[in-house]
Amino acid sequence: MIVARLNERLEVEGKTDIAVDTVGAGKGEIVIVTTGSAGRRAGTLQNSVVDASIVGIVDTVETDGQVEV
Amino acid sequence: MIVARLNERLEVEGKTDIAVDTVGAGKGEIVIVTTGSAGRRAGTLQNSVVDASIVGIVDTVETDGQVEV
Amino acid sequence: MIVARLNERLEVEGKTDIAVDTVGAGKGEIVIVTTGSAGRRAGTLQNSVVDASIVGIVDTVETDGQVEV
Amino acid sequence: MIVARLNERLEVEGKTDIAVDTVGAGKGEIVIVTTGSAGRRAGTLQNSVVDASIVGIVDTVETDGQVEV
Amino acid sequence: MIVARLNERLEVEGKTDIAVDTVGAGKGEIVIVTTGSAGRRAGTLQNSVVDASIVGIVDTVETDGQVEV
Repeated sequence: MIVARLNERLEVEGKTDIAVDTVGAGKGEIVIVTTGSAGRRAGTLQNSVVDASIVGIVDTVETDGQVEV
Repeated sequence: MIVARLNERLEVEGKTDIAVDTVGAGKGEIVIVTTGSAGRRAGTLQNSVVDASIVGIVDTVETDGQVEV
Repeated sequence: MIVARLNERLEVEGKTDIAVDTVGAGKGEIVIVTTGSAGRRAGTLQNSVVDASIVGIVDTVETDGQVEV
Repeated sequence: MIVARLNERLEVEGKTDIAVDTVGAGKGEIVIVTTGSAGRRAGTLQNSVVDASIVGIVDTVETDGQVEV
Repeated sequence: MIVARLNERLEVEGKTDIAVDTVGAGKGEIVIVTTGSAGRRAGTLQNSVVDASIVGIVDTVETDGQVEV
């Protein structure tokens, strides 16, 4: 799945990456991506070649007391 | 918890990230974030999918003999 | 093999890298590259000094419902 | 300890970081910093949450046959 | 040894780094550098604090069928 990095205002920054979806995220959802060796600790990826996994779906982001999602 | 990278003058640089708080940091505090496999060595995160943890709260920063915080 | 990073519109971004090809990718094909310790989990590279491997060839990329390749 | 990245002409580049000093480096000295899991191989940091350590102090830098320090 | 990152046209990009030479590379040679935990798999570096090693010397680079070195 293609993921794009967001900044703290939830705007898309330039960089995109490929991550394995372990939680069933839909298109356009805000997700948490874990990288490096941690990416293989999600689900059943222990011995895979994965270096990035989607491990959570974000419901709400609060910045300076203001809920943005 | 959303963390922003600071430079040596404690100004916010562009990049923000998500880190697990293992020390009970408050909003707006300056913290030390450890990344990669080290992020799973904090607290009880050993087998988690975490790739970044807040492991300390900064009391004082001294640059060129000048205390900034 | 020299690989170049693509963005979500499949345009070449600036950075190139060297990766071991474990799947027999041809010149000009779009591939998936895994980095870090995951790079050594591909094929027979377990004890090698590899830090990046080509682990897949991309057939189709779909962005916002639009097939690009 | 706060460390700043230098380029090959020993000029400070933008990025600064925090590293554990394992060799007793003084303020203003040029040091070698190791990052990632290697940072925990210095001194007694094996089970710590450290992701960057100062592991050496640089005496001399020679670029194109010219000694700069 | 100080190494500089090259792009696909073998031009020097901005970033330089320090790497342990395990193959006896000479000054000005084009080398392959492996980083992260892979850097400790070269030669006898297994338990060292190394995070980047020179693991090969490049004889020929071919881009789009054109030999550049």
